[in-house]
Amino acid sequence: MPHWTALVTVLAVLFYFYTSTRVPAARRKYGVPVPAISGNPDFERVFRVQANTLEWMPIFLPLLWLFAYYISDIWAAVLGFVWIGGRALYMVAYSEAANKRGPGFGIQAAACVALLIGALIGIILSLVHGG
Amino acid sequence: MPHWTALVTVLAVLFYFYTSTRVPAARRKYGVPVPAISGNPDFERVFRVQANTLEWMPIFLPLLWLFAYYISDIWAAVLGFVWIGGRALYMVAYSEAANKRGPGFGIQAAACVALLIGALIGIILSLVHGG
Amino acid sequence: MPHWTALVTVLAVLFYFYTSTRVPAARRKYGVPVPAISGNPDFERVFRVQANTLEWMPIFLPLLWLFAYYISDIWAAVLGFVWIGGRALYMVAYSEAANKRGPGFGIQAAACVALLIGALIGIILSLVHGG
Repeated sequence: MPHWTALVTVLAVLFYFYTSTRVPAARRKYGVPVPAISGNPDFERVFRVQANTLEWMPIFLPLLWLFAYYISDIWAAVLGFVWIGGRALYMVAYSEAANKRGPGFGIQAAACVALLIGALIGIILSLVHGG
Repeated sequence: MPHWTALVTVLAVLFYFYTSTRVPAARRKYGVPVPAISGNPDFERVFRVQANTLEWMPIFLPLLWLFAYYISDIWAAVLGFVWIGGRALYMVAYSEAANKRGPGFGIQAAACVALLIGALIGIILSLVHGG
Repeated sequence: MPHWTALVTVLAVLFYFYTSTRVPAARRKYGVPVPAISGNPDFERVFRVQANTLEWMPIFLPLLWLFAYYISDIWAAVLGFVWIGGRALYMVAYSEAANKRGPGFGIQAAACVALLIGALIGIILSLVHGG
């Protein structure tokens, strides 16, 4: 079992959960009652941070675990931490203004590309060598 | 392989799928054609039940399986059943009125907190003991 | 490790990611700036393709891997490829018109039903036989 990857998975889930808790707080702050999800740009940016993090979970988690299995537990965890860091930067910047969300988004996307390439190489080598 | 956890995973996926099937039914009932996702509060609550269940799947499933591996298959499955039960209560109550969604939401969140604490303890013990 | 299932998982993640990249492109094309997610039906259909693919990821991926473990790696991968094919057809057709989205949606749903039935049979047999 890749314990470090398991740990970073729990941390990623906690981070994602944190982005969710910001939505009801933004509802109160900007006066957008449930079930509405639009009507105020400040609210919508906080909502989009949560939605975008959700949208990347099924990219990040499968690639993270495939990388951990095929390449390395430790390196999967390192890339997982980079992903969380990029996500945190994206969250802070996007909450301030839509046009500030680029750098954090790029960091987390780069971490996923690295996980993807590693996983794909590992899978193909295993298929070729009949492992 | 934790068979009971596998079984509760299939049931959770089926329950989540059921919340999805209620969305097109609510579209017809309340006259909200695709691709709109707003315009009628009754429709929006049914839509939010599905969306919120989706939002919790990447919290619930990873924690469920980490708990199953590090702690116990049977207890993971028990907490998984509690999660589905809380989700079902949330679905019924939120469909009636937005301010009735609290208890079911609390139950499913408590199940996830229990899964989280167990998984985290298990992971940390394994890392400390080099297991 | 079910290598073919791992490969189809990476392909499914890449396909899902591709549906996401179409959203900012559609924002520019149809003049719908972030963080808005409504306002133009052509944009909304592209957005809904991405959203619906996201909504099916927590159905598809768990069933795919349970099927791979309990039944067969190769057959899981075959059904996974069918799922991606149905999703691609759904994407192309729904982007053209909302009422064209049926066939692709049906194909990918049928693949998931096959994964579900196989996984459920495998799990129940393992529980009964104490495997």
